[in-house]
Amino acid sequence: MPKGGQKLYLGGDLGATNLRVAVVAEDGEIRIAERIALEDRTPSAVAAEMAKLMRQVLEESGQSFETVAGVGVGVAGQIAGESGLVLVGPNLGWRDVLFGALLEREIGRRPRIVNDLSAAAWGESRVGAARGATDLVLVFVGSGVGGGLVLGGRLHEGAGGIAGEVGHVKIQPGGLPCGCGERGCIEAYVGGHNIARRLRELCEAGKGKAILAAAGGDPEELSGAALEEAAEAGDPEAIELRGEMGRQLGWVVGNLVTVLNPQKLILGGGVLFGMPGLLRETTDWIHRIAGRQQLQQVSILAPALGDDAGLIGAALLAHG
Amino acid sequence: MPKGGQKLYLGGDLGATNLRVAVVAEDGEIRIAERIALEDRTPSAVAAEMAKLMRQVLEESGQSFETVAGVGVGVAGQIAGESGLVLVGPNLGWRDVLFGALLEREIGRRPRIVNDLSAAAWGESRVGAARGATDLVLVFVGSGVGGGLVLGGRLHEGAGGIAGEVGHVKIQPGGLPCGCGERGCIEAYVGGHNIARRLRELCEAGKGKAILAAAGGDPEELSGAALEEAAEAGDPEAIELRGEMGRQLGWVVGNLVTVLNPQKLILGGGVLFGMPGLLRETTDWIHRIAGRQQLQQVSILAPALGDDAGLIGAALLAHG
Repeated sequence: MPKGGQKLYLGGDLGATNLRVAVVAEDGEIRIAERIALEDRTPSAVAAEMAKLMRQVLEESGQSFETVAGVGVGVAGQIAGESGLVLVGPNLGWRDVLFGALLEREIGRRPRIVNDLSAAAWGESRVGAARGATDLVLVFVGSGVGGGLVLGGRLHEGAGGIAGEVGHVKIQPGGLPCGCGERGCIEAYVGGHNIARRLRELCEAGKGKAILAAAGGDPEELSGAALEEAAEAGDPEAIELRGEMGRQLGWVVGNLVTVLNPQKLILGGGVLFGMPGLLRETTDWIHRIAGRQQLQQVSILAPALGDDAGLIGAALLAHG
Repeated sequence: MPKGGQKLYLGGDLGATNLRVAVVAEDGEIRIAERIALEDRTPSAVAAEMAKLMRQVLEESGQSFETVAGVGVGVAGQIAGESGLVLVGPNLGWRDVLFGALLEREIGRRPRIVNDLSAAAWGESRVGAARGATDLVLVFVGSGVGGGLVLGGRLHEGAGGIAGEVGHVKIQPGGLPCGCGERGCIEAYVGGHNIARRLRELCEAGKGKAILAAAGGDPEELSGAALEEAAEAGDPEAIELRGEMGRQLGWVVGNLVTVLNPQKLILGGGVLFGMPGLLRETTDWIHRIAGRQQLQQVSILAPALGDDAGLIGAALLAHG
């Protein structure tokens, strides 16, 4: 029986490098969680690993697949609505994978598969920084750029379940190549992997000496953190590049605030967390770009649930 | 009693130059409609005129304010949620006008006041081109640029009721001045009033001779129609300017398709209706900008309800 009379859900989070599962109470509290590094990324192996870890946390918490109220899993990829089909999982190397069915075969129960940032937006809107908000835009800048939308109190997934793809808003025609195969997406400019690539190219061209120094002189160590350090130390090249990135990201997000008129905007992810200066520049540009009325009506917040947002949100989105 | 067993609603549409009212059945059929030119734009005079016209159509249809199921009015302006407060009505010269309360005093019944393009989106999604769609983005380019969003089967109004302001998405920092008081909004580039102004400035600078000729040589007659005519006749300046406008508009709308993943996209309004070449260029750019999956999932349509979309939509949105 659920402790304290609360329903319990089983949540999963399938990222690029880790697989996590947790038993989550309906108030969002994580009762028990486990994490393993992802080694074999073939879909059936991932489903088997996740099922194994799920059985483990269920056992440790005295629950079973039959006693939890639902199973929800966030996946870093494009998910086709409620079908459990992963259209594209770029970091997993997946395309058209029926992960929902694979996992169902392992656990004997149909899981809800959702995009990881949609799950994070749901988690933050139910039990996190945007608790009680009916309209939330969440934008995370990590190795990639992604987003999630809660509109009118519901997760907005769109016609095909792939709404919220903020990272693939295009900012420049024929611009920088993006991991999605297209060009000019905002992710190609400010996603963590792409920042590192852009900095390496800068240094290969003989520029960015202060940034390279901040990376200990090792081009392989170039990252947003090195850029931030050089900018904070006053290096003009670093300040200019970081400012441009803040302008680009603030532009995209500010226009979303104009069109969607959210109550809450959550900006998070490893890159923004590790680059407070970029977060500041981005926020400044959001204030220049978004409509005045919309700006008065929105609170810009940091996430409250940290790494757990997707795990908690996926659990709370699970089918009953 | 309603004919044919259908509920009847009273709809109103308050545009920049006309005031319209209609008795609308729940299936969207207009039973009777009237229109008058707007002369005195002071809020109380408009409320009195609208009430008078409403009484007229009610009388002609054998109804009264008590027998209709609800009253809804679309207004060209920013509306603060369900309060009936018109924050800004640029073409009416209104700011912070409690139009809902003014009209209620006249008709003895509380009307629902909504943005005219939100009303149009609702009308098209219920009984028009997007009938049955749960996710619709509607963009109208007329004298201004506006939009309406139906997401998850519901009108998306946002935290303050001003969502869908596609016209004030910014495309250029410190760009052309917009009627909203800011700079660089898409409306400043492709709204009908602004096209005319841009063409006059072009001709004053001694350029755009073919466009001026298409306007009969009269700078006051310069408009999107003249630009379209010159472009269709092969004038390189006109082709370039129209292409730029299509690129700018397609960019904004294509990115919305990426983020919102709608089933239907409706492009309409007087400028696009009168400039099929601009509509074509815009559609081409939407195909270059929007994500591939999202493009496969969206149908791009013309409006089906024409000028009546807002009137019908406002009626169908009326409080019961």
